[in-house]
Amino acid sequence: MDPELARLCPRYHYAIELIGRRWTGALLMLLVQRESTRYAELLAAVPGISDRLLSERLRELEHEGIVDRIVEPGPPVRVSYRLTAAGRDLQPTILALAQWADRWIPSEHANAKVS
Amino acid sequence: MDPELARLCPRYHYAIELIGRRWTGALLMLLVQRESTRYAELLAAVPGISDRLLSERLRELEHEGIVDRIVEPGPPVRVSYRLTAAGRDLQPTILALAQWADRWIPSEHANAKVS
Repeated sequence: MDPELARLCPRYHYAIELIGRRWTGALLMLLVQRESTRYAELLAAVPGISDRLLSERLRELEHEGIVDRIVEPGPPVRVSYRLTAAGRDLQPTILALAQWADRWIPSEHANAKVS
Repeated sequence: MDPELARLCPRYHYAIELIGRRWTGALLMLLVQRESTRYAELLAAVPGISDRLLSERLRELEHEGIVDRIVEPGPPVRVSYRLTAAGRDLQPTILALAQWADRWIPSEHANAKVS
């Protein structure tokens, strides 16, 4: 193996596949824009996501320490989500990628699904 | 729907699921570190990737305008890959995420596969 072979950091590798899971990146973009967001608002804001997948993705992000789940006692009980300190720290990455996408992703791609 | 609802940019959504596909983020990290990288070096540098998946991911990145495939006439014929201008422009995103991962991803996670 080439001694000058480029390095691959396992933490980075884990992180990029975590934020790149289907819908996860979309949820992060929405969550960085507000202090906290109600579950129903997330469901409405992400086109095509199902109730089941939204719950699953939010549970994953909670488990990874990226979002906090906040339950406001009702009635009606309201569940909302906000980024933890780790989640807020993703903002530079998300903004850099959003700027990149504005520069390089053709608009017709943006309407196609990632297969 | 809340009029103040956060916006989700479709280009960003496309981009994050593109770079977050399994192995794609790893390949981008390797490619940003060098002028060009031979196919065999990429295969050796990414633990666990198969020949078939490496070819598939590189073809996708070529199709998206992120990498160029360079064939040096042989013998032996050598195939290498380098980032296009669009690909090089991903560097700030990749570095921001690598720094985030260093700060927030526990080392034990880095050895586990993203499911």
